[in-house]
Amino acid sequence: MKFVEKESSIIKEEEDDEEGNMIVVVGDDDDDEGNMIVVVGDDDDDEDDSDQYKFVLSCIEKDVSEEDKFVPPLNFSMVDYGIYRSGFPDSSNFRFLQTLGLRSIVYLCPEPYSETNVEFLNSNGIHLFQFGIDGCKEPFVNIPEEAIREALKVVLDIRNHPLLIHCKRGKHRTGCLVGCLRKLQRWCFSSVFDEYQRFAAHKARVSDMRFMEMFDVSNLRHLPASFNQT
Amino acid sequence: MKFVEKESSIIKEEEDDEEGNMIVVVGDDDDDEGNMIVVVGDDDDDEDDSDQYKFVLSCIEKDVSEEDKFVPPLNFSMVDYGIYRSGFPDSSNFRFLQTLGLRSIVYLCPEPYSETNVEFLNSNGIHLFQFGIDGCKEPFVNIPEEAIREALKVVLDIRNHPLLIHCKRGKHRTGCLVGCLRKLQRWCFSSVFDEYQRFAAHKARVSDMRFMEMFDVSNLRHLPASFNQT
Repeated sequence: MKFVEKESSIIKEEEDDEEGNMIVVVGDDDDDEGNMIVVVGDDDDDEDDSDQYKFVLSCIEKDVSEEDKFVPPLNFSMVDYGIYRSGFPDSSNFRFLQTLGLRSIVYLCPEPYSETNVEFLNSNGIHLFQFGIDGCKEPFVNIPEEAIREALKVVLDIRNHPLLIHCKRGKHRTGCLVGCLRKLQRWCFSSVFDEYQRFAAHKARVSDMRFMEMFDVSNLRHLPASFNQT
Repeated sequence: MKFVEKESSIIKEEEDDEEGNMIVVVGDDDDDEGNMIVVVGDDDDDEDDSDQYKFVLSCIEKDVSEEDKFVPPLNFSMVDYGIYRSGFPDSSNFRFLQTLGLRSIVYLCPEPYSETNVEFLNSNGIHLFQFGIDGCKEPFVNIPEEAIREALKVVLDIRNHPLLIHCKRGKHRTGCLVGCLRKLQRWCFSSVFDEYQRFAAHKARVSDMRFMEMFDVSNLRHLPASFNQT
């Protein structure tokens, strides 16, 4: 069963049925347990199995490309227990986001959420916290400290977890908010900036890093910034 | 109290005592609750407070630079619940690593662990799983599939969590192992490669990405690759 070996990375289970045919469980459709069973011939019979292989291949490819593979949003990453970050999620990311069991989204742009995204939130019981921060350019003008502070309070409240922080590209606004969280978690600046730059790459802004450096976390110190035990 | 406003990012609490002096709680040493209390003059008295300010500043700086700030290892990030990644941790990272409550480390280099690091493991009850993978260069020669597979089994076993995966720089060997985990979690290749490149940056290797693409996860499918509920 060379084919099966070669393609086995996308096959969930293999077993022989009573007639000596291999049963390949690839999908989630047809048997009593909700699996699609595709029967391909084994090496014991004399039939030409090539057509069956093609059929399996087409099922598998369809299965993988349209159903099985998850597409995380741009710049997706885990920040801490119950906290994720990313760029703007579109409908191709919805199946992946469902696996996270999100309770909230912290959205950092002024533009209203698209109808498709609002529907996704509603049908999955996800609460939207929107903080309309303009995507400002250099030189440093106006990352509004108060908006970041209020957003940080939402992020720190474990009743909102699991939550996803996102803006448009997941670089600057999201990077600033996560950087302020890291500061509260007492990371040294070089590590805060290193993480910021990992996502912003060649779009990194000194003004954002200055904002994080100057951001005053002292009156947030009473809030929990460790999520290990939750 | 201009000074206090300017420096307040490293001050935990401010309050006035009965004599009208501001009490600044910065550290963790002297009062009944284990806080160091530094009394600086307020603006109502006529004394020159500059010496007191210097004293406060020196306390705060010492406190922050030597005791309060955490230094995560190079390229540190959270991968999933109970799974972290980084470059090689040194003694400056130990205090930070303690906050993670690690149970295991998956170390992907052939070089023996330094004595200092072994001591850290022993005194914190951390189990070391070492997989000696050479840091190979382009062109693609020998990322040993079997070593990555065995390492992945350790990573998937939640009895080993929380765990830290690391190599030397946290780019190539660690990136390949995390990429194989993402493949098992059914991330599409573009997202797997994007994450790999975020850490490897201009050192990204096509050969590593080819390795991840070719890596067969089919016989690991029975192992749990979702840690959300743990």
